[in-house]
Amino acid sequence: MDEISFHSNGREFRVPAKPIVVVCIDGCGDDYLAHAMLRDCMPRLREMARTGFYGIVRGALPSFTNVNNASIVTGLPPSAHGICGNYFLDANLGEEVMMNSPKYLNSPTILSHASAAGRRVAMVTAKEKLRDILSVDLQGIAVSAEKANQARMETHGIDNVEQIVGHPTPPIYSADASLFVLRAGVALLEQGLSDFLYLSLTDYMQHRYAPWEAESLEFHAALDVEIGRLLDLGAILACTADHGMNAKADAAGRPNVIYLETELAERFGPGVRVICPITDPYVVHHGALGSAVTVYLSDASCIEEARRWLLGRPGVSEVYDRLSAGSCLELPVDRIGDLFVLSERNYVLGRTPKDHDLSALEGPLRSHGGRYEQMVPLVISRPLNRDYQIRAAGDPRNFEVFDFVCNGVTE
Amino acid sequence: MDEISFHSNGREFRVPAKPIVVVCIDGCGDDYLAHAMLRDCMPRLREMARTGFYGIVRGALPSFTNVNNASIVTGLPPSAHGICGNYFLDANLGEEVMMNSPKYLNSPTILSHASAAGRRVAMVTAKEKLRDILSVDLQGIAVSAEKANQARMETHGIDNVEQIVGHPTPPIYSADASLFVLRAGVALLEQGLSDFLYLSLTDYMQHRYAPWEAESLEFHAALDVEIGRLLDLGAILACTADHGMNAKADAAGRPNVIYLETELAERFGPGVRVICPITDPYVVHHGALGSAVTVYLSDASCIEEARRWLLGRPGVSEVYDRLSAGSCLELPVDRIGDLFVLSERNYVLGRTPKDHDLSALEGPLRSHGGRYEQMVPLVISRPLNRDYQIRAAGDPRNFEVFDFVCNGVTE
Repeated sequence: MDEISFHSNGREFRVPAKPIVVVCIDGCGDDYLAHAMLRDCMPRLREMARTGFYGIVRGALPSFTNVNNASIVTGLPPSAHGICGNYFLDANLGEEVMMNSPKYLNSPTILSHASAAGRRVAMVTAKEKLRDILSVDLQGIAVSAEKANQARMETHGIDNVEQIVGHPTPPIYSADASLFVLRAGVALLEQGLSDFLYLSLTDYMQHRYAPWEAESLEFHAALDVEIGRLLDLGAILACTADHGMNAKADAAGRPNVIYLETELAERFGPGVRVICPITDPYVVHHGALGSAVTVYLSDASCIEEARRWLLGRPGVSEVYDRLSAGSCLELPVDRIGDLFVLSERNYVLGRTPKDHDLSALEGPLRSHGGRYEQMVPLVISRPLNRDYQIRAAGDPRNFEVFDFVCNGVTE
Repeated sequence: MDEISFHSNGREFRVPAKPIVVVCIDGCGDDYLAHAMLRDCMPRLREMARTGFYGIVRGALPSFTNVNNASIVTGLPPSAHGICGNYFLDANLGEEVMMNSPKYLNSPTILSHASAAGRRVAMVTAKEKLRDILSVDLQGIAVSAEKANQARMETHGIDNVEQIVGHPTPPIYSADASLFVLRAGVALLEQGLSDFLYLSLTDYMQHRYAPWEAESLEFHAALDVEIGRLLDLGAILACTADHGMNAKADAAGRPNVIYLETELAERFGPGVRVICPITDPYVVHHGALGSAVTVYLSDASCIEEARRWLLGRPGVSEVYDRLSAGSCLELPVDRIGDLFVLSERNYVLGRTPKDHDLSALEGPLRSHGGRYEQMVPLVISRPLNRDYQIRAAGDPRNFEVFDFVCNGVTE
């Protein structure tokens, strides 16, 4: 592979002639790594953290998967790239729709620019929805674990994925869905099919298990084996996360759900609409319940009263009107409602009881979306150069990971 | 010592017949422990975390020392105990005053109740100011490292502290100021002078050094030696923190200071008063700059406009009016101004340039007070029982540490 340089979204990337691999461990709050390292389950990641860089970086809000993956591949906050959830009210259509189409992505990606500049780029995601959004203009490989067996050269840049990876297409609700992504990365690197990779896992395990549970430790040990293989193949490797994960339960373990549309309708009359941006087809994870929602009020004169009322509602931690959400939370103001609401660490925000099927959950309610899932780890296999050391000491972002790994490491 | 039980501030404490030691490692964000453990500097704490309990707990806001220490010894949020900073505008006096007198503490302490119930209680703080506030009604030992050589039996419950500890009174701006506190704890336990201890360190080292710096690692290794001694003496030990610590600098390493009184006065006219609750005599630490301030406006009709303007000011992350600060941030509404303001991870809020002497700083500006220094570790030397495991998975607080260590551990 060649050393290349290119510009993407206002930043120059100078990519060394080494394989570059960025891994987004979906849902990996630092507590997952801490518990796994405490119990010696991640010796390779621990060595990376010791000899390279390890720090805590700030993700984008709301702390959801699509939002942060879009930020990572563009290097931009949601206000710039436009992806502010899985699901939103399209003001042009007047309809609630999934935001899983590249037409909603307002910025080109670092991946497409790297491919145009001559690197062999591959993106492997666990879920197909992410592949759809983020593969735009990518001249290379873009495949999901979820539909690995459906990948075709003309549409995905690759055929015979299962043979290449040496593993069958995994069920999406499994640890294997994430492991397949890493194994695909190893195979693509090993077989010379790619030298600039973005590998994005899924948080099924984190939704289901707390950091200290045996299943979680075993999962992280398995991740570490693949991380070791990527390192052994000579990759400059960075691991970060899109968001963390917290139990959303009271002191007795019962789900702490605030049905906000129900409560607001009781107080401010019908016509209130609450949009849960976590809403996606993968309801086993979270029942469409997260720690951030946006609220549309039918009567604009109620906005300020509703804002104040919400701030007094136990479990609600922050409430912004549309413009403040734009400036304080870096959100695209044309894709959110009159108010944007974040909840406390152990609360989730829902719509009405009938909109959320808690019986679909496997195990306790663990979810994300709010401020307390925003901070995530960043581990890089090389030490940072002087300039990036200083930047890393300030307010580094998870979506600067490609910048850090391309421009910020020592030779 | 005897097994005792007592009630304090609405909670029952059942204290086993073992020494109980709670350590507040001032300024210890989890990144300090993570880096120290990565480099094998804290083998005893690591073993505690592996075999006992380790988790991330939520501190009180603003994330300052007195606020959180008052919460820890009362088990209550600031709205209940009243200590919301080092410094405030006393509305009764109409004057800005230090909040370092027990007259401002609205609740009795767990320490005083434990002493009344028959345990030999000792509180050792690094700074004298904390001793002053928190030793109220404590029938036992209450001494600070800062003024160890001035302790007298009639006022402090102990004479000859230097001889007992075996170390001289340390300078307050030193690693030794914290180490002395732990060494005093070891000596009191070893010599049978106490069996229920609260040991509260100082964050001089954390203000000065980032988690990965050699000085910081050496400091944590020295803490670990004393932690090991406490464990070897049979203590049930819990280590937590009052707040974390972040660099408050831009990408080039320059301090990110917003002089809020200056800016607000320019926009809303004279009469604006900004109170920095971090203000204390120890300016070498932080130059009286932290990530939370409260604002008094002379014209009440400007409050809403000022709130919105502040939310649009880059570097400001959250703004609450008085009542919302009471409900969302758990603050005593009679001790804060019209607005309460938090800043971003790498920004601090000040008054006017002349109020802050940045030249007094040793090294880069590292500080705390905001949301990004709120989450801290909790490590307990015993596993939790079933009930407390469930509580710990929700939204445990740093100020529940006495509850956890007395009521929550397995035999």
